[in-house]
Amino acid sequence: PDTQSERDERHLAIQRVGVRRVKFPLLVQTERGVQPSVGEWTLDVALPAEQKGTHMSRFVAWLEEGAEQALDAATLRSRHLAMLEKLHASDGVTEVAFTLFERKRAPVSGIESRLDLQARWVVETRGGQTTVWQEVAVPVKSLCPCSKEISDYGAHNQRSIVTVRVEWLADKPLPFSAQMRFAEDSASSEIWPLLKRADEKWVTERAYENPKFVEDLVRDVALRLNADERVGRYHVDVENFESIHSHSAYAVIERN
Amino acid sequence: PDTQSERDERHLAIQRVGVRRVKFPLLVQTERGVQPSVGEWTLDVALPAEQKGTHMSRFVAWLEEGAEQALDAATLRSRHLAMLEKLHASDGVTEVAFTLFERKRAPVSGIESRLDLQARWVVETRGGQTTVWQEVAVPVKSLCPCSKEISDYGAHNQRSIVTVRVEWLADKPLPFSAQMRFAEDSASSEIWPLLKRADEKWVTERAYENPKFVEDLVRDVALRLNADERVGRYHVDVENFESIHSHSAYAVIERN
Amino acid sequence: PDTQSERDERHLAIQRVGVRRVKFPLLVQTERGVQPSVGEWTLDVALPAEQKGTHMSRFVAWLEEGAEQALDAATLRSRHLAMLEKLHASDGVTEVAFTLFERKRAPVSGIESRLDLQARWVVETRGGQTTVWQEVAVPVKSLCPCSKEISDYGAHNQRSIVTVRVEWLADKPLPFSAQMRFAEDSASSEIWPLLKRADEKWVTERAYENPKFVEDLVRDVALRLNADERVGRYHVDVENFESIHSHSAYAVIERN
Amino acid sequence: PDTQSERDERHLAIQRVGVRRVKFPLLVQTERGVQPSVGEWTLDVALPAEQKGTHMSRFVAWLEEGAEQALDAATLRSRHLAMLEKLHASDGVTEVAFTLFERKRAPVSGIESRLDLQARWVVETRGGQTTVWQEVAVPVKSLCPCSKEISDYGAHNQRSIVTVRVEWLADKPLPFSAQMRFAEDSASSEIWPLLKRADEKWVTERAYENPKFVEDLVRDVALRLNADERVGRYHVDVENFESIHSHSAYAVIERN
Repeated sequence: PDTQSERDERHLAIQRVGVRRVKFPLLVQTERGVQPSVGEWTLDVALPAEQKGTHMSRFVAWLEEGAEQALDAATLRSRHLAMLEKLHASDGVTEVAFTLFERKRAPVSGIESRLDLQARWVVETRGGQTTVWQEVAVPVKSLCPCSKEISDYGAHNQRSIVTVRVEWLADKPLPFSAQMRFAEDSASSEIWPLLKRADEKWVTERAYENPKFVEDLVRDVALRLNADERVGRYHVDVENFESIHSHSAYAVIERN
Repeated sequence: PDTQSERDERHLAIQRVGVRRVKFPLLVQTERGVQPSVGEWTLDVALPAEQKGTHMSRFVAWLEEGAEQALDAATLRSRHLAMLEKLHASDGVTEVAFTLFERKRAPVSGIESRLDLQARWVVETRGGQTTVWQEVAVPVKSLCPCSKEISDYGAHNQRSIVTVRVEWLADKPLPFSAQMRFAEDSASSEIWPLLKRADEKWVTERAYENPKFVEDLVRDVALRLNADERVGRYHVDVENFESIHSHSAYAVIERN
Repeated sequence: PDTQSERDERHLAIQRVGVRRVKFPLLVQTERGVQPSVGEWTLDVALPAEQKGTHMSRFVAWLEEGAEQALDAATLRSRHLAMLEKLHASDGVTEVAFTLFERKRAPVSGIESRLDLQARWVVETRGGQTTVWQEVAVPVKSLCPCSKEISDYGAHNQRSIVTVRVEWLADKPLPFSAQMRFAEDSASSEIWPLLKRADEKWVTERAYENPKFVEDLVRDVALRLNADERVGRYHVDVENFESIHSHSAYAVIERN
Repeated sequence: PDTQSERDERHLAIQRVGVRRVKFPLLVQTERGVQPSVGEWTLDVALPAEQKGTHMSRFVAWLEEGAEQALDAATLRSRHLAMLEKLHASDGVTEVAFTLFERKRAPVSGIESRLDLQARWVVETRGGQTTVWQEVAVPVKSLCPCSKEISDYGAHNQRSIVTVRVEWLADKPLPFSAQMRFAEDSASSEIWPLLKRADEKWVTERAYENPKFVEDLVRDVALRLNADERVGRYHVDVENFESIHSHSAYAVIERN
């Protein structure tokens, strides 16, 4: 019996129904080639009031069908529309979170290493409109201007995470590597997994010369986003894991 | 130097700036007395474009000032407004997440135990309007109707978490104990930390007699919320930790 | 100045010093080919009492050097020994945790899907002895014998995680796919990400016919491990995410 | 039918069987009064080879029985022995993790705030011996000596977590407030949730005057523990959330 297709008498539409915490191999298409990762997927559709249920297994079948395809934001958008069709749904969400690595060269020695970034795509269709959000969380260094100013020497500093979520525009696609730079260029200093002694001196002094409150950091990221025509709507979240407290300071700017 | 009060020249307002992941003792005022817990707080204010920074230490000072006061939604709303004043801010958010315990009697033996619930209050002021959201995440049992129907015996079932977030209305306050019931009454069965053998039989049979898809569960919670005049806007999220898969099924209904 | 190589006057050896929470791309060599994943690494060495510090950047450099090499337990063991040499250390630990996928066919329809498993290797050298531990956490289904016996119909069941850690023996290597089977064969039923209706009936009935307490499950895994000559020492942890409670039941058997 | 008491024919003893992730209100008896918190409990017993199962509900019943009693390490030890008796077990473990707050005065202004600490007790009985471990994880500040030495100005610093686990000795009980000091006194600087400007200057300069590698920090904690007669066996773990990397540096010293 196809219970899920029966009529429902409660007259209540469901905004989102689907699967969550689905892990599946992911091939990320970057501008420099394909990067394999592990995706954690959230997939849902809207369900009209008269329909009893959705077909949960189709979400996983859809993942299996696309297993070999490398994804960028454009391809994921197409696949998302195919998912809605497969589920006979007009509205729904495709979301995938994954770890991405960007190769970087240390500032003095030039030694290469791979910085890990938490990335995410969210594709959502509502009322005939489909939007794609592309997010990347970038670890950087922040150094406190107040601490520098009032102290005879030194200044407290710490790791910060700058999460930049932008609306991805099909005609002006923004690569993750560029999106990351909005955060790194705005920080007291960018960071690297692998640093030689001369690099460590560079990062230390660079941060000291370039103090930023959490308010400065979020504003400087926003200024850079405002100046870039590839960016539509955005949401920026900066979190400083304060080294003089056991809690975080944070700030958010969004443009709608 | 009061750097934070200087003028900022970037002409960018900040929607949210404050502190996050602040742990602080919490006294929860329930209808049956004061229940101590540990709160994890998020506190922020909006910062006008021309202002350089906020005063982060005032958030923690505000927590210390209120340390002895037991809070319910009404009291927290007042304290939130005092926080905005202390920060000289017109807009902002006070959020606290905590573990709450509700005493329950097992269905047959009557033996008492305390069910742990994850609760949350979010008080937000924007443009002169202050809203209070009260959330509780309730563990329940769900049993699959399809599995029951197609199988000669048995039916797969699992733990589910029903997260009910409602807009709290000052003139018709909803206690957590009542808010929890919307979830428990809608599930295949409610659950208890402590069950005797006769209770376990009751829960097993009750769930088997009462199968629910994730769609049924979220709709039945919504029906109950719609019928209760103490409830304004709401958001219900049901997640089934499927026992036949390694991922979750989930559904969301919200009323705006 | 090479501060780390200076003499330390505190006369205190350090058992473990190194890096933690390092994410790096991982190529897993399985018996059916190379599977890309993302590794989270913990790397440390023992530091003699007279030595002031270790060279932290060498751990990351070691990861970069091996970036192109697919790893199985044997290869990781060799690379671990190279790491100790690079750090001029006699003792130390190489640990990497990652998500692995195993292709499975549904029991009736034969439809294929990929089950996600949390895997881990730990290679440790102490006093001239090097041991390799290989771990895999397998999601399965457990059904309660007591609930079945006392109830007129139905039985509570839930997702369980069976974590099987075995000492890997160079001359009798155990593939992850075989290690996973110890857990799956011992459960009330194994599970799949993708099931057709006929498969769901099969899993439901199979679990009902095959009830297991957490004690049964851990013992049945241990029995199977005892009977397999590829297995040396082991540690088995079974956790049932009880569907009638908000807490877990668990059991552990280890053989030293 | 009391299935759990039947004979088991698999001839396999179970080292640990019980419940995990049980949340329950906790009253912590400190030297300055009773502090309420929320405990997350792990409770298990050893099961002889011939016994089929344990009585899971007794663990939760045991928690309910002790709900009103404030606990310190000595009282928990007694209660643990009562738990073993209730379960008819010779061996087993009682473990509880909780958040504790310690009042501190800022170094210059003297303003008071409460630092949150993650604490834990583990009571274990094996072969007639009962040991009690008392653990506290303390957030502090560490500043890198190398960065200070090579840089013309500034030095990178970050939040660190020092986890000190000591064997609690009945005749020389160590309060959490003293145990915390081993970590704070060894760090580049201790930290506070609430700091005035003069305090922030103090912390910044104090850390700059007092640089420590992760190796220094763990050794200095160990030196202090070695010099205190209230401390038996111990395990110290220091983790630096490096502000120039996206990973942590860490070090461990233990005394058996």
